[in-house]
Amino acid sequence: MIRVSIIGSGNVAQHLIQEFSKTTDIELVQVFARNQESVAQLISVDKIIVNLNELKLVDVTIIAVTDEAIAAVSNQIPFENQLVAHTSGSIAIEAINSKNRQGVFYPLQTFTKSKEINFKTTPICLEAQNDNDLKTLQMVAKSISNVVFHINSEQRKALHVAAVFVCNFVNHLYQIGNDICIENDLSFDLLKPLIQETANKILTLSPNEAQTGPAKRKDTQTINAHLNYLTNDNQKELYKLLTKSIIDNGKKL
Amino acid sequence: MIRVSIIGSGNVAQHLIQEFSKTTDIELVQVFARNQESVAQLISVDKIIVNLNELKLVDVTIIAVTDEAIAAVSNQIPFENQLVAHTSGSIAIEAINSKNRQGVFYPLQTFTKSKEINFKTTPICLEAQNDNDLKTLQMVAKSISNVVFHINSEQRKALHVAAVFVCNFVNHLYQIGNDICIENDLSFDLLKPLIQETANKILTLSPNEAQTGPAKRKDTQTINAHLNYLTNDNQKELYKLLTKSIIDNGKKL
Repeated sequence: MIRVSIIGSGNVAQHLIQEFSKTTDIELVQVFARNQESVAQLISVDKIIVNLNELKLVDVTIIAVTDEAIAAVSNQIPFENQLVAHTSGSIAIEAINSKNRQGVFYPLQTFTKSKEINFKTTPICLEAQNDNDLKTLQMVAKSISNVVFHINSEQRKALHVAAVFVCNFVNHLYQIGNDICIENDLSFDLLKPLIQETANKILTLSPNEAQTGPAKRKDTQTINAHLNYLTNDNQKELYKLLTKSIIDNGKKL
Repeated sequence: MIRVSIIGSGNVAQHLIQEFSKTTDIELVQVFARNQESVAQLISVDKIIVNLNELKLVDVTIIAVTDEAIAAVSNQIPFENQLVAHTSGSIAIEAINSKNRQGVFYPLQTFTKSKEINFKTTPICLEAQNDNDLKTLQMVAKSISNVVFHINSEQRKALHVAAVFVCNFVNHLYQIGNDICIENDLSFDLLKPLIQETANKILTLSPNEAQTGPAKRKDTQTINAHLNYLTNDNQKELYKLLTKSIIDNGKKL
């Protein structure tokens, strides 16, 4: 049984608490939560601490707080020479105070409170500074996910940028689709099967094979009709740039 | 039993042939295919015609050809005053030669040959010029889908633009994620659970509730780090514009 503590009470922390509670491989020793209520439903109250000085020695201490707070929080950890990992996609491993052994435990997923996710299929990307620590992180990760990767800091940075494109930006395009529907008395539900199928297609086809639409076909007539139709400047700019990008991509191939 | 013929042998035509063959509500009378081989596996050869003059009278003739070809094809239909519907999201109902009764039978989905889709959940958007024709199209549509909508031409135009955003443009963002992964020796598979979850989230949350990421958090530090990281001008421009759009959207709310 690996002993783990979590610092944090936000989205990622809450999901990790839930997952660790499900597996017998992990003993969740303590959770540091500034906001006790946010984790009160997830763990017995005697394990919740509100002062970092109360942190006990464990096998891994996971810092699951906002990116900006990681360094400051790691400075306040009361012990030394222990394995401490953060969960961020974009923060360097060195942000963790070097008085402890640094690690990264980055679950590549979009977390929203109250929305359950399947952790077994969520890739967890690990970094550590020695093989022993990597092994420990691997055991922790494998206890909750079937997809565990060892990547370096450069790759993690790339992955985080890629994730912004395929998740955050994609969701914003859903938002634009939603807005266009609402303006025209159409239910956003109409677009949902298309959204699902678009995401499903790339499970078996490459994005290049899966690409359809007027830009792919270089169908200038439809593209111009759409640009004339759009009155929102922002939507029009996005339409132009994404269309150009699809056409340029076709030329590269 | 409603008698239907299909003009066309592309993606949409092939999927419709397959669906109509599955239901006993529809008798698929003829398929006009310039390229006989493309439909030879889907329908008995005596039903395939290569000359539009051979078209028989049926309850609905569906034109499932490229947008550019719809008008010309409808001109060549040898009969008059029959119900003829096209399957395009972006072409006006009037593109169909008015010697016949015009209709639209628009399945809102992304079709790729060799990729099966669930037609039962695919919305079919209908237009017709009288109630009787609308009823006929509804019966045809309901025989293959549980989601049948009557919308007007303006709404269809809007829906098609929205579909470009949530499908074609989304897939292009998958392509960019794929490219960033490959450049960094990472498997695109790493992003697939995130892509699935992003699409799943909007089944239960609005896109606004589902939005996460640095732009949503106005996390300038991460945004700037990502912009510094990106060397591809096109990706950088898209990153900037989409980030601005997410931030502006936050201000509206």
